[in-house]
Amino acid sequence: MNKVKIGIIGAGRIGKIHADNLLRHPQAEIAAISDLFAGPELEEWAQARGIAIVTKNSEEILNNPDIDAVFICSSTDTHVPLIKQAAAQGKHIFCEKPLSMDIKQTEEAIEAVRNAGVQLQVGFNRRFDHNFKRVREHIQSGAIGDAHLIKITSRDPAPPPEAYIKVSGGIFMDMMIHDFDMARFLSGSEVEEVYAQGSVLVDPVFAVHGDVDTATVSLKFANGALGVIDCSRKAVYGYDQRVEAFGSKGSSVAGNDFPNTAVLSTAEGIVSDKPLHFFLERYNVAYIEETEQFINSLVRGDAVAVTGEDGWQAERIARAAKLSLQENRPVKLSEI
Amino acid sequence: MNKVKIGIIGAGRIGKIHADNLLRHPQAEIAAISDLFAGPELEEWAQARGIAIVTKNSEEILNNPDIDAVFICSSTDTHVPLIKQAAAQGKHIFCEKPLSMDIKQTEEAIEAVRNAGVQLQVGFNRRFDHNFKRVREHIQSGAIGDAHLIKITSRDPAPPPEAYIKVSGGIFMDMMIHDFDMARFLSGSEVEEVYAQGSVLVDPVFAVHGDVDTATVSLKFANGALGVIDCSRKAVYGYDQRVEAFGSKGSSVAGNDFPNTAVLSTAEGIVSDKPLHFFLERYNVAYIEETEQFINSLVRGDAVAVTGEDGWQAERIARAAKLSLQENRPVKLSEI
Amino acid sequence: MNKVKIGIIGAGRIGKIHADNLLRHPQAEIAAISDLFAGPELEEWAQARGIAIVTKNSEEILNNPDIDAVFICSSTDTHVPLIKQAAAQGKHIFCEKPLSMDIKQTEEAIEAVRNAGVQLQVGFNRRFDHNFKRVREHIQSGAIGDAHLIKITSRDPAPPPEAYIKVSGGIFMDMMIHDFDMARFLSGSEVEEVYAQGSVLVDPVFAVHGDVDTATVSLKFANGALGVIDCSRKAVYGYDQRVEAFGSKGSSVAGNDFPNTAVLSTAEGIVSDKPLHFFLERYNVAYIEETEQFINSLVRGDAVAVTGEDGWQAERIARAAKLSLQENRPVKLSEI
Amino acid sequence: MNKVKIGIIGAGRIGKIHADNLLRHPQAEIAAISDLFAGPELEEWAQARGIAIVTKNSEEILNNPDIDAVFICSSTDTHVPLIKQAAAQGKHIFCEKPLSMDIKQTEEAIEAVRNAGVQLQVGFNRRFDHNFKRVREHIQSGAIGDAHLIKITSRDPAPPPEAYIKVSGGIFMDMMIHDFDMARFLSGSEVEEVYAQGSVLVDPVFAVHGDVDTATVSLKFANGALGVIDCSRKAVYGYDQRVEAFGSKGSSVAGNDFPNTAVLSTAEGIVSDKPLHFFLERYNVAYIEETEQFINSLVRGDAVAVTGEDGWQAERIARAAKLSLQENRPVKLSEI
Repeated sequence: MNKVKIGIIGAGRIGKIHADNLLRHPQAEIAAISDLFAGPELEEWAQARGIAIVTKNSEEILNNPDIDAVFICSSTDTHVPLIKQAAAQGKHIFCEKPLSMDIKQTEEAIEAVRNAGVQLQVGFNRRFDHNFKRVREHIQSGAIGDAHLIKITSRDPAPPPEAYIKVSGGIFMDMMIHDFDMARFLSGSEVEEVYAQGSVLVDPVFAVHGDVDTATVSLKFANGALGVIDCSRKAVYGYDQRVEAFGSKGSSVAGNDFPNTAVLSTAEGIVSDKPLHFFLERYNVAYIEETEQFINSLVRGDAVAVTGEDGWQAERIARAAKLSLQENRPVKLSEI
Repeated sequence: MNKVKIGIIGAGRIGKIHADNLLRHPQAEIAAISDLFAGPELEEWAQARGIAIVTKNSEEILNNPDIDAVFICSSTDTHVPLIKQAAAQGKHIFCEKPLSMDIKQTEEAIEAVRNAGVQLQVGFNRRFDHNFKRVREHIQSGAIGDAHLIKITSRDPAPPPEAYIKVSGGIFMDMMIHDFDMARFLSGSEVEEVYAQGSVLVDPVFAVHGDVDTATVSLKFANGALGVIDCSRKAVYGYDQRVEAFGSKGSSVAGNDFPNTAVLSTAEGIVSDKPLHFFLERYNVAYIEETEQFINSLVRGDAVAVTGEDGWQAERIARAAKLSLQENRPVKLSEI
Repeated sequence: MNKVKIGIIGAGRIGKIHADNLLRHPQAEIAAISDLFAGPELEEWAQARGIAIVTKNSEEILNNPDIDAVFICSSTDTHVPLIKQAAAQGKHIFCEKPLSMDIKQTEEAIEAVRNAGVQLQVGFNRRFDHNFKRVREHIQSGAIGDAHLIKITSRDPAPPPEAYIKVSGGIFMDMMIHDFDMARFLSGSEVEEVYAQGSVLVDPVFAVHGDVDTATVSLKFANGALGVIDCSRKAVYGYDQRVEAFGSKGSSVAGNDFPNTAVLSTAEGIVSDKPLHFFLERYNVAYIEETEQFINSLVRGDAVAVTGEDGWQAERIARAAKLSLQENRPVKLSEI
Repeated sequence: MNKVKIGIIGAGRIGKIHADNLLRHPQAEIAAISDLFAGPELEEWAQARGIAIVTKNSEEILNNPDIDAVFICSSTDTHVPLIKQAAAQGKHIFCEKPLSMDIKQTEEAIEAVRNAGVQLQVGFNRRFDHNFKRVREHIQSGAIGDAHLIKITSRDPAPPPEAYIKVSGGIFMDMMIHDFDMARFLSGSEVEEVYAQGSVLVDPVFAVHGDVDTATVSLKFANGALGVIDCSRKAVYGYDQRVEAFGSKGSSVAGNDFPNTAVLSTAEGIVSDKPLHFFLERYNVAYIEETEQFINSLVRGDAVAVTGEDGWQAERIARAAKLSLQENRPVKLSEI
């Protein structure tokens, strides 16, 4: 493939980000975009970007023989049906995380992809973050020796609205799924057992929906290493995304990104600006890279960087963590 | 009391450190030191410091009516008997951690102290560390709001010799007991439940003695906050002692201390020196402060900063952690 | 003006950077590009970007009535003639620094621009750097009170080739001119006197061409503040670009940018990656912002952010610094 | 010499600091202390430290045949006469900086010391600072290659009282003399020429006494390296003492020391505590080391670490800087 013709399904915030990033790639061409609420506004937006087809009906994309690949950026409940349809049409797929809320459905989607011989990349954008990639390199190059411990901190600047909380699938499936994937990405080993603690400390609305807003998850990896993830829906000082890998020959620790390096010293103390506010700022370049690599994989015929299996494994860990919290006991992945 | 006359029991490394720190205090006077292996070397050491009595027999200290307070720096199995004897003689006590390996014995020691109306300070020196004190102030002043999460990293530069491992009481009682106390000190809340993960990744000798060398412990506090501690017997880059408190209004994070601030930039990268090597370097000032405050408390008649109850609580958490690891389940403190 | 049609004169590295950055701006349209060595390669490059006209002759751009603004990215000796021609044709101008090597010529160019009523922005890209902008804000907001001292460090990772050194105009006009502008930008005050020290420590080739490779310049500002700039042609650890402003109420210090925040700790020490390598990496976003703001100024009819007068003042300081070094004495700007 | 018997002349703040630091040294014994204003308070202070002789008359120390060495901590105008007398009595000498305000007198003092065959250490305590020592090691080990540039920042938290300013000898002799010595200490090369800028920006009282409160000094070293020092009498955020050495193979940069490493992140920003307040806090350990090394040198018969010649050279640079500021021109050291 020399040029990849793309259809985007779902024109929400993340769909539009992927679109703008794809426009930067000389071998990507966005042929169509669909959204249930497509209207004049989206048409204008699409026209300014030279996207010819704007439709309310995703079928127009899925059945369009000119389209090589689809970006599935619609709500989670639509992911699996859309993946199956796209696979059936022989289209490569980029799908936002999680693939689904249901492991069995996820497995069906992966099987459909496998049978169709198409590629499926899952939107674990953080794998493309400059900081986390460097920590992984420090592990893979042997710089820190055998990994003994993986630590991940993941805190959002503010909780989502209640409408979102209600359908989010809970903190493990919605938010920590990124961290579960990061744990696998960094350690290069599978998670075998998890133990989750959770608490409602930010806002009682989470309790109303059977969710928690603050959680820690302990991990045991197949290679004997241990892991700890901590997560909060609200860090008032901004998006807090850090990882630490500790091993037999050293450690690699990655902190946040900041809008600038200026440090103000006054009679009150030494002050610097807060971290980049949220995922759009922090992972701006990571989003660009994940679409670039997806396109490059298709053009070169290489395997994609983050597969359906990666999505499935992260979902299994999320499921195990939820069960662990419910039953207050360690849960083996083999139970899921 | 205007001047405190002190007898030191146990002239090992830590006993001598306390002695030298006591010499700096204008209201402390070291009257005697005892050690099972006292000999010419210790006599010379004592003479250079103006310590009149050197003996193999701790009874000479315990029965000496001129002595107001004892520092118990002998092996852990002697702590409880010595505390009881000292209390019976009406002497105030500074005792190294842990008070004992047995909760019941610890309770007896505390009761003896209470009945005798003397003071008992436990050697949790890290409470006096400049960094950790500042984090606690950030919590107590309300600067970070309600505490949601306490994180503690505690890694030694190198494991102890096998002879020590054998009698150490295990990683939870020997090493993490400091961190359990730190968790209580920082959060200002009691631990109600723990879950421990452990692994032998540093040296198989730990397995030989039924111990682990790498561990994480998840904590639930009475006030709803969560906690995570990670611990390793070997960080090749040096003593790694950090804490982090995260709350509704912010976070307070304290890192390591370094021998200097010099940063070398070359074609190979940006390099700085490793953290202060081990506890003697890192907690040098903290050791001075803990003896100072003990003496000050006795002179003023104030309560000591770290009580027998603090020692007892930390031991209970250590015991619970050990049980949790053995049975791979969360353990409530109320079980202990 | 709703859309700005642009012609780029000079298709070297910096011309192409500006072109790519202009392509991101919805109200900019690149109509033409000229280069003395235009050929098939440039034509292909232009075609991929939808640039219709590719020519060896800058007159085709200057005489094209459809073109609203020109980017002058050719060699320094062509700047003034091109500015005059463009002004005469009523075109707005973005010109790389320095405007010329000759103050009188620079004045003529500025006068031509003034008479024609067009806008001229000079390519002092560092004014748009996120770090330096924040320091300036700290000064302008009063956060550090009255400025007492401005310090600038400016070191390149490697010296340019001899061919460039020969025609560069010397370290003050070629390299430190950015720092002289930064000094004015930060302090908000004019430089009244300079004293320069210089030495050939990097490579004797600089001496061959009457230049130095290491220099410091002391500044006196009209508002009484002092300044110091240090400059080297070769910092083996990478591009070193830092500023510091010190005042009556505090200081604001901005450091380098790094490719990631990962810190590797091993038995050898604590290591992080070197700063972003050179100006293309460090000032990537600053280049984008300077073209954005230029276009925005034209569209809105606002004054540009960096004027011809700014270019002229920086050149005067460079000239004074050169004279100071030659005569080893402080030189007043009024002498120039 | 196995034990050094010491007399301290001048019981002000710095005399008492040296006394307390000497008490820590097992081979130092303070035999006497003198002060013009000696009274009951000083007697009590001395008694608590086991110092037998307290006198108003320094002659009692200088003529006491039991005393091996004197610490001269009295006012600057008394330094030279006291050095001469002590040397004549065959006593070793530790003298606070500057040796005198007059180069000729300083030379006489040094000659007296040389003729008497005694040792003279000058109180340039910063040479013993952990950070600056590490930078010097980075230079001397070749880690940064040939030194090209030395940068020193030296700012006090608050200006001294007017009574002190009046007799201080001015910013160069009183304050920057430390930095001039540091420049020599770091570079390992002699200063050959200086150029000074100065301004009264902190308090007009400095102008009243012909002094400045803000200054920069440019240096040329014999080995071709350049230097820049900046100095202020008032940094509201605390004692700001940093150095930077830049060379052919890299740089070594040392920052301030802080009371703790805790970083508070809130909705307002990222905050840490101000640097250690002033010289007593920052150079606490350096003061201990300078007395230790002085005693060790006497005991071993080694040369002292900082000689009278070092004091003399720093005074010459101070004198040259003052002349440079007065005449607004670079001044060669050979003129002094």
